[in-house]
Formats: sequence, structure tokens, C-alpha cells
Amino acid sequence: MAIYPIVLAQKTFTHQDNLKYPFEERGLQFGDGIYEVIRIYDGSYYLLKEHVDRLFRSADAVKINLAATKEEITDLLLQLLEKNKMTGDGKVYLQVSRGSAPRDHVFPQGIPANMYAYAQDLPRNLENLQKGVSVITQPDVRWENCYIKSLNLLPNVLAKQEAKEHGCYEAILHRDDLVTECSSSNIYMVKDGDIYTHPATNRILHGCVRMRVEQFANDLSISFNENGFKQEDLFTADEVFLSSSTSEVMPVTMIDNKQVQDGTPGPITRKLQAAYENDANITEGKITHTI
Amino acid sequence: MAIYPIVLAQKTFTHQDNLKYPFEERGLQFGDGIYEVIRIYDGSYYLLKEHVDRLFRSADAVKINLAATKEEITDLLLQLLEKNKMTGDGKVYLQVSRGSAPRDHVFPQGIPANMYAYAQDLPRNLENLQKGVSVITQPDVRWENCYIKSLNLLPNVLAKQEAKEHGCYEAILHRDDLVTECSSSNIYMVKDGDIYTHPATNRILHGCVRMRVEQFANDLSISFNENGFKQEDLFTADEVFLSSSTSEVMPVTMIDNKQVQDGTPGPITRKLQAAYENDANITEGKITHTI
Repeated sequence: MAIYPIVLAQKTFTHQDNLKYPFEERGLQFGDGIYEVIRIYDGSYYLLKEHVDRLFRSADAVKINLAATKEEITDLLLQLLEKNKMTGDGKVYLQVSRGSAPRDHVFPQGIPANMYAYAQDLPRNLENLQKGVSVITQPDVRWENCYIKSLNLLPNVLAKQEAKEHGCYEAILHRDDLVTECSSSNIYMVKDGDIYTHPATNRILHGCVRMRVEQFANDLSISFNENGFKQEDLFTADEVFLSSSTSEVMPVTMIDNKQVQDGTPGPITRKLQAAYENDANITEGKITHTI
Repeated sequence: MAIYPIVLAQKTFTHQDNLKYPFEERGLQFGDGIYEVIRIYDGSYYLLKEHVDRLFRSADAVKINLAATKEEITDLLLQLLEKNKMTGDGKVYLQVSRGSAPRDHVFPQGIPANMYAYAQDLPRNLENLQKGVSVITQPDVRWENCYIKSLNLLPNVLAKQEAKEHGCYEAILHRDDLVTECSSSNIYMVKDGDIYTHPATNRILHGCVRMRVEQFANDLSISFNENGFKQEDLFTADEVFLSSSTSEVMPVTMIDNKQVQDGTPGPITRKLQAAYENDANITEGKITHTI
């Protein structure tokens, strides 16, 4: 999807063609930065506060000085949509690196962080949300601090590419047989009416949608069990689904070429999808399950 | 150190001011790339073939198509020095990302990799090479494929910064008590006349200087033991040293504020330093140990 022409660069706005970076940029040379992807429905952000809060947690964890308050960044993100007269469904990508400075592992002194953000249209993938997606499983080879939403995404890139080459939507990662998350989403299974997922430790991203899924489960009186589960449990699960800001609550109906039960989205996944649409104020173009 | 004005950009040369990258660059957004740092003495590359070979191994590992032969890249690197009339001691930084493309974890199709390289002066740090350096120890929290020289360097950056804040030169990393390497160098200890270091598995970078250290040890009939060693072994070692293209063979004389033996570079470290200078054809401005 094309990028809306006006982009945020530091605390001002410019045309996207004007935003270029020198080769000695710490994002480019070290992946020394953090990011967020925020969903937009009908021209309004969904979970904006949660994403801004997480940006600040990531910045704290890697000691990047954002030199802005949460209110300022929130305001800039709102202006980004206004300036582009954005009205439909989409997403905003926001990145902050430690800045442009001569290459040295040690933090540069007196150099401002580089912040930028841009908006894109992103229609909901209703077909996938209705039918479910196929995934593969892969060993989780990432670092120990996956709770930081950092730019060090090479293992995620390689896992997602492997999924794509198998004709799949995502890769479910497992570390020592314990399922952690996917390459860019959280993962859950349902067994005997209860939801199971990896605890929100340093080994997974604490997804903003994951937080909402927990709330939806509570509201629906469905047990949300954070003791995790094993790779082999996936193949006896009643339901499997994943979540992220771009994937929403996405049914997983095939894993490593094996069907999850009858290969259709299960009843708890559907309830969570409905709760998501309600929470995000989605009133038109909703998911319709025909079965 | 200032960058020499003419830089390599793809397979041509340009002034450094002309080399800029768009914000949708896979190096910048995913750390989706690889790099090399190559040492130069007296205007000539040291271990150039070894670095180019490793670049190709890294590219294979992350499936980046370099679209160039080893001979072409070698020739371009040689031209970089010629065009800048570089004659002294220095280094070249070479980076290849998967290219500039709309942000998507999945590999872009039909997009060329982005290669660039630049040269800088780098005088040998004789004072450190003569006196040795202080280091700290840190848990190794990196991913499982540290043998790939990738741009995902955030954990290395954070470890080096922690060392700096402790007034130290480097951080020795250990995984489950087993010493792996440092944030940007390999690490060795000497005990009873033998050298010990981590095996060249996926968990450490296979340093070009490390390969030479092994050869120097063989030439000197010193045992080069690759079974690794534990963190606590550091504190009873006879000698400790690290190696990299920028650090050469560097004595470590203080670890976590505890002196290594009498706090001076040991005899085996000095022999390896002399072997390094001989191998790199360094004839003037050599290390002089006064003790």
C-alpha cells in the first residue's frame, strides 16, 4: 500500500521524498532503535495509548532518550492523520533510532534520536479472518529481550520468509519446545474451553492486542492461562489463533500441513473476533462466518 | 576519525554527501543486512580475502544476493583506497542490506541489495596494546546465530555501552556461565601455557583475526584449545586477551575490577602480538613492552 505523502520527521512534518538518512545512522548500522505499528480504523487510531506507552517502555529498556512526552508524541501522531486527511482503515509505522553519528558501538553524546512516522492504507483481510490461515513451526533463535520492540528483526524476517516459502501466513516459534510467539504476532491455543499462551516475560513481545485479548477473555468468562504450552500441544488443540495490530484476532486452521480440528475457525476464536470488532468500533464490513 | 570523501555505493563511487537512504530501507527497519570491518596498515588491507570470504558466508546464511563475485568486491574495495589516495593505517566499513523496499518482513522481489563502503584513518592504539585493557563480564543475551556478521547489533551496543559506563574497554559475554566472546571481539585465556577459547560454533563470530591467532599458536607450538572455558576460569587465568580487526591482539589486564595476575600483559599474549605484527607486515611503530 502506498505511503501517505506527508510524514513525521522528528517533531515536524515533511514530504516523504525529503526524508533521507545518512549511511552513518544507528538504525541502519546497528538496528539501534525501536518502533511501533498502530492500527487505524475509519480514520481513528486503535489502542494508541497502549502503543505510545510501549514505545516509552522500549525506549527505557534500550536507553534511548525520546526527548518528548507521551502527550507530544500522541499529538504528533494525530496530526499525521489530519495532515494526510486520512479517513479509512490503515496503519502508522513509527520508528525511533538512537540517531545519526559516527559508527561506534558506544552511545553517541549530544546526538538527538531520529524519529519518523508514516501512514498507509490497510484494508482488513476479511478473507483470512473468516477462513483462517496456515502456519509453520520454527525454532525461536531470537535474543533474550523480545519484549523490547527493537529494530533487530533479522530472525523475524527469516522466519516469516520461511513461512512464505511454505505458502504460509506466519511462523510459530518455539524455544526448547515451549511455544513463544510468531514472527510478528502473539499465539494462543484453546483446549477444553480455556485459552493458553506464553507468559508476558522477556521472551515475547507484550502485544497491545494480546492485552485486549486477555481483557476480552475476562469479559467473556473464558480462562486466560499464561503458563504457556508446548509445540506438540498445537496438534491436539481445539482452536489456535494469533493476534497483532495488523492481523487482529486471526484463526490458525493449518499448522505444518496438519489441519487444526476440522480446519475452520473455532467458537472461542470467533467470540474474540467479535469482541475485537466491538472494542475497535468496527460497525461496517465485519467478519461473517458462514459455517 | 573522519571518513575519506569518496565512498563506494553499489558498484560505483560517489562523494559521501551524496549517499543517503530512504526510510524504507531494510537495514534501517529490520537490521536486515550484513557487514565487515577490514583493517588497513600502511595503505594495504590486512586479511582482505578472509573478510570477503566471510561476507559471502554471511550473505548465504541470510539469503542476501550480493549480485557480485568475490573478485568484483575485492576490486571495488581496492579501488576505494586508491580513489581516496589512502596510505596510512585505517579501516574500511562495508555493509550490504537486502535493499530499499516497502516495509514487509518477507523478502522483497526484484530489489537489489544495497552495498556501501567507506574508509577511515585508524591509528594503532599502542598504549592499550602495551598496557592492556580493563573489561567487565555480562550475560550473553544475543540470538543463536552470532556467526553471521549481521546488522542486528543492539545487544552488542548495550553491552559495549555498559562496559564504557564502567570505565572499561569491552564486555566479556557468557552464556550459562560459558564464556562466548566480547561485544565486538573474540576472547581467550591462557592457563599453564595453553590457549583456551570458545569453539567456532553458531554462538560466536568466527573472527578473521581469531583464525590467525590459531595459526600463530600452531606456528609457536602453543596448544589452541577450542573446548571453551567458564566465567570463573577468567579469574584464575595466567593471561587473558581479546582479538578483533580493530583491537588486534589486545591484552586484558583487569576483569570486573580484579587484576589478571600481576596486571601486565603475559608472555604468550606478547608472542601473539609480535606474530600479528609480523603477519600484518608492520615494521614501524611497533608494540614495545618495557617490563
